[in-house]
Amino acid sequence: MTSGIPDEYFVRGNIPMTKEEIRVLSISKLRLKEDSTIWDIGAGTGSVSVEAALAAKKGVVYSIEKEKEGIKLISENIKKFNVNNIVVVNGIAPDVLMDLPSPDRVFIGGTGDKMHHIFDIVTSKLKEKGIVVINGITLDTAYYANHYFKQKNYDVQTICVNVSVSREAGQKTMMVSQNPVYIISAKRE
Amino acid sequence: MTSGIPDEYFVRGNIPMTKEEIRVLSISKLRLKEDSTIWDIGAGTGSVSVEAALAAKKGVVYSIEKEKEGIKLISENIKKFNVNNIVVVNGIAPDVLMDLPSPDRVFIGGTGDKMHHIFDIVTSKLKEKGIVVINGITLDTAYYANHYFKQKNYDVQTICVNVSVSREAGQKTMMVSQNPVYIISAKRE
Amino acid sequence: MTSGIPDEYFVRGNIPMTKEEIRVLSISKLRLKEDSTIWDIGAGTGSVSVEAALAAKKGVVYSIEKEKEGIKLISENIKKFNVNNIVVVNGIAPDVLMDLPSPDRVFIGGTGDKMHHIFDIVTSKLKEKGIVVINGITLDTAYYANHYFKQKNYDVQTICVNVSVSREAGQKTMMVSQNPVYIISAKRE
Amino acid sequence: MTSGIPDEYFVRGNIPMTKEEIRVLSISKLRLKEDSTIWDIGAGTGSVSVEAALAAKKGVVYSIEKEKEGIKLISENIKKFNVNNIVVVNGIAPDVLMDLPSPDRVFIGGTGDKMHHIFDIVTSKLKEKGIVVINGITLDTAYYANHYFKQKNYDVQTICVNVSVSREAGQKTMMVSQNPVYIISAKRE
Repeated sequence: MTSGIPDEYFVRGNIPMTKEEIRVLSISKLRLKEDSTIWDIGAGTGSVSVEAALAAKKGVVYSIEKEKEGIKLISENIKKFNVNNIVVVNGIAPDVLMDLPSPDRVFIGGTGDKMHHIFDIVTSKLKEKGIVVINGITLDTAYYANHYFKQKNYDVQTICVNVSVSREAGQKTMMVSQNPVYIISAKRE
Repeated sequence: MTSGIPDEYFVRGNIPMTKEEIRVLSISKLRLKEDSTIWDIGAGTGSVSVEAALAAKKGVVYSIEKEKEGIKLISENIKKFNVNNIVVVNGIAPDVLMDLPSPDRVFIGGTGDKMHHIFDIVTSKLKEKGIVVINGITLDTAYYANHYFKQKNYDVQTICVNVSVSREAGQKTMMVSQNPVYIISAKRE
Repeated sequence: MTSGIPDEYFVRGNIPMTKEEIRVLSISKLRLKEDSTIWDIGAGTGSVSVEAALAAKKGVVYSIEKEKEGIKLISENIKKFNVNNIVVVNGIAPDVLMDLPSPDRVFIGGTGDKMHHIFDIVTSKLKEKGIVVINGITLDTAYYANHYFKQKNYDVQTICVNVSVSREAGQKTMMVSQNPVYIISAKRE
Repeated sequence: MTSGIPDEYFVRGNIPMTKEEIRVLSISKLRLKEDSTIWDIGAGTGSVSVEAALAAKKGVVYSIEKEKEGIKLISENIKKFNVNNIVVVNGIAPDVLMDLPSPDRVFIGGTGDKMHHIFDIVTSKLKEKGIVVINGITLDTAYYANHYFKQKNYDVQTICVNVSVSREAGQKTMMVSQNPVYIISAKRE
């Protein structure tokens, strides 16, 4: 089976969801193994958590989310996709991170104002050869995440992805843009 | 495990290889199942075949390639990734396609001048609910593939993907573009 | 003075307006001369007509528009920018084109279903060394315009432009995409 | 006449030249007036200087360039386009900037390691309602320029431009990407 569950298969509320193409690329950059321990920080609807849990069948995904609506959606998507290796953590990063098991892989979908603190705790807890993948929609996150992990001597790659998707317009097919997303991947040497 | 083997893990010759991000997205759009029968038309280095074979563990991938150098590279990559469900077909599409088992999934990485004939045979052999994914780097392929499968009443989605990748430039990080690729996905209803 | 009047300076109704960056690039590809005779087919709000009229001070711009609201907006923008070398033509292309003076330059912002007929009349009336610039937001227009003028032995260049624009998001700066636009430039040899 | 001189019209050496589309957009964002005093910092081949000088006919362009080859190319392009309102300044920014007349408009094509100092001097000398336009190909410049001028209370807009250009490939037309460029425009209130 391939990763890349279409967006519309997930239960979604009013919470922004990572778009299918970005989710697939982010999961790919995580280079998950069957038994990876994964943190999904700012899990939102749980779409990345679900895909990660399906790929890391013998691993565990910790879905960290502060909003109650998010927690509800994650639970519904866990049920819908029938995965049993997701632990839902209702709380605010970085506060709740210290008590979680050290991760092999960390996905950060959104960081709000505490990016710096979250990165500090992630790098203090990440296992050797661990990988962090960050999605950024701002210049600030792209620059800062790239810069931070380079300074920590991680092996860093940043890609910027511009996807446009077809939409029927009468007999013709127009292309509609998604906003550009930066995917920063940092591997601990 | 996640799809998305980095480019440098493959044995590559002078044959152009689908870039990692495009390969991941294309594999994802194929929505492979464990037992899918897959045609990889214009297999090149075999990178898509290998990823498809790893995802469809109980299925079979037919890697169709006309160039001898391609055949050699595919064989080396099969050995390197230790997959045993790829059948290498040395020949020219569409000629060799008629004798292959009907596919559930078809990936077309390049079509040369015979796009029209290849599409005709693919649509005549594709199983119900089957999916065809095409990569196009020309306006002609993007338009024509989109148009062809719409007319055949397939459910068609076309995305255009612009990826740029970071490269160190002194203390700074510049972004280097890959060429845009159109990924056309067509599902038979 | 430079071309590139910001979008918000124009009187706009509910009619879609070419975005500033696309307008600037399109005007540039037109390589206007001071005394050019210009057709602006599907003039919309008249934003391209106004910029063209300012650049071709001793020339004439024929703004062809079928919608009454468009005609009203063009007239208001002519007044606002105080240009006196725009002739407003209320009618449908290609019907009204035959009676206009032969153009040196033609801009086609939108073509609807009559693209083929419009191109035929434009090529029959365009002066030697004349230039046609087309904006396309569909795969169909991009492919077809490119293909049409190549077959007529014009010197054709097509660019695809993806622009994203900053928007403040709290303390951070996010990037918001405009849809991709194809700008096809065809020069008669 | 319109701005947007094609790349191949300029005398070019081995010095990287701003691509036509980026040059046109940058000139447009400068919102030049007929009598503007303009600094072109890191003038390279002088392509931006020439276009600015043609647009600001009664103004003056100071082309600052440290490399001897650049100075030679600028001089050749001044001659080729027959402009008489460019002052060539052979020196390193920010050192040479203090002695120049206060500018209405500043274009910064490249900043090297001294970005911070250059911005400081530019903001100390820029006239009221002046405009600074910066081209950045790195995440660092995009982030930093955006951030710097926001903090100085300028009205800042950043766009990211991805252009791909057609190239003939047999009977088909492929699209070839230019690297993404950030164009930061900052207006002093």
